[in-house]
Amino acid sequence: MKVAIGQAGGPTAVVNRSLAAFISNFNPGEIMLVFNGYSGLAEDDLIVMKEADKERIISHSHVPGAMLGSGRYHFNEERMERAVNNLKKHDIDTLVFIGGNGTMAALYRISKFAKAKGMDLNVVGIPKTVDNDLCGTDHAPGFASAARYVAMSVRDSDRDVSSMKNFEQVRILETMGRNAGWLALASGYLKNTAEEGPHHIYLPERNYCLNDVLINVERTWKEYGYATVVVSEGVKFDEDHQVQHSVSNGRTVLGGISRSLEVFLQENLGVMARGELLGMNQRSFTSAVSRSDCVEAEDVGIYAAKLVRSGVSGEMVRLLRKDTVEYEVDISSVSLLDVYNGGERLLTSQFIDHPDRYYRWLDGLIGDDLKTYPEPWLRSSKYEEKRKYHNRQ
Amino acid sequence: MKVAIGQAGGPTAVVNRSLAAFISNFNPGEIMLVFNGYSGLAEDDLIVMKEADKERIISHSHVPGAMLGSGRYHFNEERMERAVNNLKKHDIDTLVFIGGNGTMAALYRISKFAKAKGMDLNVVGIPKTVDNDLCGTDHAPGFASAARYVAMSVRDSDRDVSSMKNFEQVRILETMGRNAGWLALASGYLKNTAEEGPHHIYLPERNYCLNDVLINVERTWKEYGYATVVVSEGVKFDEDHQVQHSVSNGRTVLGGISRSLEVFLQENLGVMARGELLGMNQRSFTSAVSRSDCVEAEDVGIYAAKLVRSGVSGEMVRLLRKDTVEYEVDISSVSLLDVYNGGERLLTSQFIDHPDRYYRWLDGLIGDDLKTYPEPWLRSSKYEEKRKYHNRQ
Repeated sequence: MKVAIGQAGGPTAVVNRSLAAFISNFNPGEIMLVFNGYSGLAEDDLIVMKEADKERIISHSHVPGAMLGSGRYHFNEERMERAVNNLKKHDIDTLVFIGGNGTMAALYRISKFAKAKGMDLNVVGIPKTVDNDLCGTDHAPGFASAARYVAMSVRDSDRDVSSMKNFEQVRILETMGRNAGWLALASGYLKNTAEEGPHHIYLPERNYCLNDVLINVERTWKEYGYATVVVSEGVKFDEDHQVQHSVSNGRTVLGGISRSLEVFLQENLGVMARGELLGMNQRSFTSAVSRSDCVEAEDVGIYAAKLVRSGVSGEMVRLLRKDTVEYEVDISSVSLLDVYNGGERLLTSQFIDHPDRYYRWLDGLIGDDLKTYPEPWLRSSKYEEKRKYHNRQ
Repeated sequence: MKVAIGQAGGPTAVVNRSLAAFISNFNPGEIMLVFNGYSGLAEDDLIVMKEADKERIISHSHVPGAMLGSGRYHFNEERMERAVNNLKKHDIDTLVFIGGNGTMAALYRISKFAKAKGMDLNVVGIPKTVDNDLCGTDHAPGFASAARYVAMSVRDSDRDVSSMKNFEQVRILETMGRNAGWLALASGYLKNTAEEGPHHIYLPERNYCLNDVLINVERTWKEYGYATVVVSEGVKFDEDHQVQHSVSNGRTVLGGISRSLEVFLQENLGVMARGELLGMNQRSFTSAVSRSDCVEAEDVGIYAAKLVRSGVSGEMVRLLRKDTVEYEVDISSVSLLDVYNGGERLLTSQFIDHPDRYYRWLDGLIGDDLKTYPEPWLRSSKYEEKRKYHNRQ
């Protein structure tokens, strides 16, 4: 048996745990390592894993980033053909990729393509995403640590801005998530009272009118003296286009809506507003990783090794939540075709309309060791007077 | 004895520890709490601290942000007069403020102003800054935790971008620090080898030519396939002006040079570059605070209580490093006049030219429990070929 394994898409803080768990548990058989995601397949950038390589991977399992190199790669017909030819050349019988939506779609397409070319290729997917937009699984490794980072940094940043009312009145924090609001809504996980932020969370699943945003933020600012706003990178206001962070070599990433909102609120409210991206730390900062995320990232790697050994193909490992009081998951698999057809998994209306249900759902994931801050926050009598005045208006 | 205490300037993750330590150790005597920094003095926003307030402050000592409200405030003659009149009205004999350069300068001016008006007012300063640009002390509480956050997030973000070489070639991370490079240079604390980032750190203390930046980044990109660049918010390239993040109500903050550099490098190298601010998390993220910073933030508060009790005036608490192998500090005080005259404390040439000396200096502060990542990182043979090719050129 000869397996090739690679990592694709944006890395997470725990993605190397899945890789290390797979190669430690796949036995016996030969493993080839694919560098830089799918481009490594098309460009024949693979090596046979030796004992020293295995040890290196295991010793780096706690390191963020993708150990093998990851990347974004568009598979056209010609590249697909080269990839399949390389797999043939190396006598690979099973291809395993760790990734999200795009990775699983490509894996499904490669499998079909290989079959059409008369090649007998098994494919198995290991889930990974910080955005949590992957179908067929309750959640995917990587998301919980990112959600934990978002919840903690928004809780702390809110305390920071709440103490600078005479200087900065509105802080806008932008999360990752592409077209899904899982990470953005997680920012409210540690919110304790109405007075604490985040006061307003804007999600890509909904349409917002900028004028409503203005009214909401102004009300909060007048009520509490400041406002913390969270906006997901994929949000569109007034049905405008999504804001792109940067464009180069024909490539774009989402990002920058927080800065547009900053300018809009400064101009229309006359306040000091500051837009900030929570940034790449969301997917890489290791001092805040979720413990269950670490365990699950390993578990999906171990399970994938079992699937491969038993000759399964066309499946992605999935986590299914058990119907128990305490958080527990079962591991099984789901067909790549279902994942492919499912498309982007968005936040459900139930969670958007009842964030408390979403936060209970998050409990086991991001860790119920996280603490909200004690209440009440100290307030001056002048502040109380001002609040009463605005509430009477 | 009647003391008024307030917090001013940008908050830190440990600034409430200083406040809690002061009020817990100042005994006997009455304490008045000043809200929202110096504006609270001018606007008579003070309350007598009751037992319940004391308990609240102590229960929030681990919370970031400034518990009493902080802020930025320009003291003109008229505001100063109102402030001093309010202090008289409340029979305050000692004014204590926790803050940085601006706070200490204002404290010194208030003291002079009160004396000129025939008022007998003692003043004591408690140091606080994330930028570490405060004179008269080896370092100030708040800095160590911020430096720790910077070192950890740059180490992790570098691993992230190093694994996305086929998509993103240059990542530019921007730190706080105003005109001082202490935080920016701390980003290299966990760098292990030449191949790991940060590859280039740009500091406000030096002048850089954009063309040199281009040459440096291009060389690193060709050598390693990517580059991690750290830039301090106050850096000027080609003697241009400092980049302002946002302007509103006549107020500005530094920030945005990373985005200018992103555009410049994209245009001139034709690479995908991403500029990012490490942001407010630097001064508020609590899950990465330095242990010695927490202890010292409390120690300066306790020492200030002693100074006040013994009738000292015109002094700021300071930390002095002992000449011992293990990290140890002595606490004493320094005259506010010296702090005032000292101005902004910049990174020394010795540290800039020998970062290893700076990193040894940082050891006791940010915690020697921090780990660099194991080496070597796994590399494909194609990558090695490409590197050899570029090195031959």
